[in-house]
Amino acid sequence: MTVPDRRYVITLSCPDRTGIVARIASFLADLGASITEAAYHADVDAGVFCTRQVVDAASVPCDVDELRALFAPVAAELGGEHRISDTGVRKRAVLLVTRDQHCLHDLLGRVWAGELPVEITRVIGNHTSLEPIVSAHGVPFHHVPFPGPGEPQREQRKVTAFEEVRKLVDADAPDAIVLARFMQVLPAHLCEAWAGRAINIHHSFLPSFAGARPYHQAHRRGVKLIGATCHYATADLDAGPIIEQDVIRVDHGDTTADMVRRGRDIERMVLARGLRWHLEDRVLVHDNRTIVFR
Amino acid sequence: MTVPDRRYVITLSCPDRTGIVARIASFLADLGASITEAAYHADVDAGVFCTRQVVDAASVPCDVDELRALFAPVAAELGGEHRISDTGVRKRAVLLVTRDQHCLHDLLGRVWAGELPVEITRVIGNHTSLEPIVSAHGVPFHHVPFPGPGEPQREQRKVTAFEEVRKLVDADAPDAIVLARFMQVLPAHLCEAWAGRAINIHHSFLPSFAGARPYHQAHRRGVKLIGATCHYATADLDAGPIIEQDVIRVDHGDTTADMVRRGRDIERMVLARGLRWHLEDRVLVHDNRTIVFR
Amino acid sequence: MTVPDRRYVITLSCPDRTGIVARIASFLADLGASITEAAYHADVDAGVFCTRQVVDAASVPCDVDELRALFAPVAAELGGEHRISDTGVRKRAVLLVTRDQHCLHDLLGRVWAGELPVEITRVIGNHTSLEPIVSAHGVPFHHVPFPGPGEPQREQRKVTAFEEVRKLVDADAPDAIVLARFMQVLPAHLCEAWAGRAINIHHSFLPSFAGARPYHQAHRRGVKLIGATCHYATADLDAGPIIEQDVIRVDHGDTTADMVRRGRDIERMVLARGLRWHLEDRVLVHDNRTIVFR
Amino acid sequence: MTVPDRRYVITLSCPDRTGIVARIASFLADLGASITEAAYHADVDAGVFCTRQVVDAASVPCDVDELRALFAPVAAELGGEHRISDTGVRKRAVLLVTRDQHCLHDLLGRVWAGELPVEITRVIGNHTSLEPIVSAHGVPFHHVPFPGPGEPQREQRKVTAFEEVRKLVDADAPDAIVLARFMQVLPAHLCEAWAGRAINIHHSFLPSFAGARPYHQAHRRGVKLIGATCHYATADLDAGPIIEQDVIRVDHGDTTADMVRRGRDIERMVLARGLRWHLEDRVLVHDNRTIVFR
Repeated sequence: MTVPDRRYVITLSCPDRTGIVARIASFLADLGASITEAAYHADVDAGVFCTRQVVDAASVPCDVDELRALFAPVAAELGGEHRISDTGVRKRAVLLVTRDQHCLHDLLGRVWAGELPVEITRVIGNHTSLEPIVSAHGVPFHHVPFPGPGEPQREQRKVTAFEEVRKLVDADAPDAIVLARFMQVLPAHLCEAWAGRAINIHHSFLPSFAGARPYHQAHRRGVKLIGATCHYATADLDAGPIIEQDVIRVDHGDTTADMVRRGRDIERMVLARGLRWHLEDRVLVHDNRTIVFR
Repeated sequence: MTVPDRRYVITLSCPDRTGIVARIASFLADLGASITEAAYHADVDAGVFCTRQVVDAASVPCDVDELRALFAPVAAELGGEHRISDTGVRKRAVLLVTRDQHCLHDLLGRVWAGELPVEITRVIGNHTSLEPIVSAHGVPFHHVPFPGPGEPQREQRKVTAFEEVRKLVDADAPDAIVLARFMQVLPAHLCEAWAGRAINIHHSFLPSFAGARPYHQAHRRGVKLIGATCHYATADLDAGPIIEQDVIRVDHGDTTADMVRRGRDIERMVLARGLRWHLEDRVLVHDNRTIVFR
Repeated sequence: MTVPDRRYVITLSCPDRTGIVARIASFLADLGASITEAAYHADVDAGVFCTRQVVDAASVPCDVDELRALFAPVAAELGGEHRISDTGVRKRAVLLVTRDQHCLHDLLGRVWAGELPVEITRVIGNHTSLEPIVSAHGVPFHHVPFPGPGEPQREQRKVTAFEEVRKLVDADAPDAIVLARFMQVLPAHLCEAWAGRAINIHHSFLPSFAGARPYHQAHRRGVKLIGATCHYATADLDAGPIIEQDVIRVDHGDTTADMVRRGRDIERMVLARGLRWHLEDRVLVHDNRTIVFR
Repeated sequence: MTVPDRRYVITLSCPDRTGIVARIASFLADLGASITEAAYHADVDAGVFCTRQVVDAASVPCDVDELRALFAPVAAELGGEHRISDTGVRKRAVLLVTRDQHCLHDLLGRVWAGELPVEITRVIGNHTSLEPIVSAHGVPFHHVPFPGPGEPQREQRKVTAFEEVRKLVDADAPDAIVLARFMQVLPAHLCEAWAGRAINIHHSFLPSFAGARPYHQAHRRGVKLIGATCHYATADLDAGPIIEQDVIRVDHGDTTADMVRRGRDIERMVLARGLRWHLEDRVLVHDNRTIVFR
């Protein structure tokens, strides 16, 4: 893999008004910054302006902290939220899994191949079955058992288990917490603590077939396309901001088992794409919807 | 357009058991029938077997009525429902419209071009705005006004209007009644009377965004794909058997108006495909789901 | 149809360097212009920068001619080519056709429905068979016969026929000359005279199956997807800059005739999309490739 | 993974005539065989009939060898080529690789997850870089070095290297030899020896951009979709029967490097789908085209 050149990535959302582009562009031009990507979006109804700008680090006469210091007054003047990332600093992700291995395997393979700009710092599973795959990739695996339906003191033990998950996750201060077919509902306080960083893959074309066993629901309804949805986890189950979706054609000959198998290809791709965009700071959220600067 | 050769199309659904294919194939082989298309589907869970067979009319030493008479005992023996169509007899369709013209225009164009094997015997609209288009194609247009929201005696007048629609439709004994963006909910007794013949196009990827203003709902939810669904109309609104669906990608830059405009291309195509399959006897319905022998 | 608000559309391509965005954005901010769309592209290898900016006409204290006069020195300073369009002035298109009616019918329908921002000033056909459709839409039809293969003095008569086509087209000074399945190779001098305005639809996924009978070629090669390509016509046949492409899945059951029929849906859509983008000044050409600011 | 029930898969191609379906169906009905899948295709122009029939092994009062013996006279009578597979016997594949790991990793992951019905008996690479991945999956890896451009006695050493590859492959008598981005042209005698078993993934939408560096070719031509093609390897480079193809949308913002990265997702999926269909005996070849009974 060739190493891409170092970039600083600026994202900003602020109240829309005339002159924002000029203000930012002038700031960058005065610095001598060479812009390699620039995207804008104004949501006229909401009165919100969003932008993502990528500059060649070599063209800027300062490091990322100085750039942050210089840009802070501009952002303050525009009244917006912003962030500046440095592609020279590798991002970190923690993966939460259960038994399904297709998403896990796909992400590990992409990281191994250098396709995804991220270090997987650890994988947390509530079963041990995926430990061998994870270990083969040299990534630490943590088993945190969760109580099943009907087990005694289930609610209390789930609280304890999630507390352990939280400690493991927060120890890495990851940029992304990926629910790679985790199959456990995140408690509201974790959704909040990890807001904008917890990424889930749901195996349906949301809002169709939210909840459990979506392929069974899809088969029963007789739809002609099935899909998958990558979204930020929020306390409102399966209703968080959608990052990416895709579908695949099925027909009357496909059993539920066929749909499960075929849907995996869509789940893999949709999660990998959504995660990539998140890691590249391409996703902004406003009013429970995403702006994705692809 | 070259005229395709005349075909007899046999469709059958019956309880599944061993030997059905052999029974039908032997019947046809004994007749000397040349099979040009054959498709089968067994729904193991439901214990139902479906088939569609197309034979070259020239290879069969009888006309379609004799074929029906000869095949009736075979179908009775198999305990199924069946139908035999003759492609030499042109099918008929009635179109119901309101003001949206994209589906109407598309269907008229396809019929004019000889792309759809059907005669449009009449178009019924509850506004007059589409009359000129229809007349330009030499098709009779009937204006049946429907009372709007807030008008006096609305329910009673709707009943009367639907009664008039029914008479006009039934006068043609059409093979398809196409709700080409009709925007009026068919009363249950018409859904029943026209069961398996009334075809609706819904401007969303059902079951997402059933009901009114689906593009507005889609925009609010922030989905990344919008779609359209062609289905048989049933008394359970937007819940009838799905014939065909398709989707198109949208992004954060698309306003609701953009979605409305872009969705039209999907509506047109999905309706045209669904209607074609219906007219070619490719669609069988079982348990509120379709088997589509494409 | 609601009438969209009036916009001025600025497109510019120029040598890439630092500060271009700042220069344009400052110019617009100083005018008080409200930017409703802005897109940028820098081709690093070619050293070329392209942009398309849309401003709300109501926010600018001048008409389009004054805006052109004010912007000219900015463009000169940047050393680029530019254009400013006014969406309040309806664009014009001339259509060239032969016998195939699906693209013609689709475009006429979209214009009638207000979906495409253009006036079709005339249709020129080398057969008379499409005259009734065109006339039903109130558009003038001109029959310019072309000599067929084997007819005497074919080359000379083609020159004469194209001369007549040229006169008819140029009389309207159209913004687009659409070869809507015209099936005649445009002579080089017309490609040049209409460079960047002559839009062709080719019924294959170019560069596969250039030339004649692409569906036959596709069937013979056994491809699993067929497509269509909308491109600017150039003297190098089927090799002009590609504006849009799309594909549809076929399988072993599809005969060449099926491909021809099914491909029409892709041709219609691809041509309509490409033409729309051209009319909305979304397409810039550089080095035989298009930048399409969708 | 639930173990699917054991099936016998019958594929047959023979000269088309009346009564073939009846003959086969009667044979199976007489055996009491329960048919779980049946597909037919008649190529009228070529006069060839193809079918694939799947029967529940439990319904047949004999093992696969007896079934073969019983069916042989039927096939002989029909004058066709046929094969009967037993899903209870696991198929075997050998993979040939170079340095690109995405296809390799994807296939290993699918086999690990039980998604592909195959045992990978060994992987042969002309570099050692992929050995760790392969070993982590417990699959033997063999390094067979190939001489690079400009190395002495290149042609002779290639012959020797291919001879070694051949021995390794043939030792396993595999059902599939997968060129998972092998990047070496198979010599004609190996294409012949492995005819119908050697499966290649080409990183373009063939026949566009055959040969080397297809993404560079695609970028230069400015196409709007890029694709991948899974095909049987034949002596005629990149011209073998196409099993599966798919495409993905690109735009002017995608560099060649972006296309390479994005194309990998299509390559992975297309190869996995093509290989699955091959392993499930869904692919028949006639006249350099495939019939794929999906």
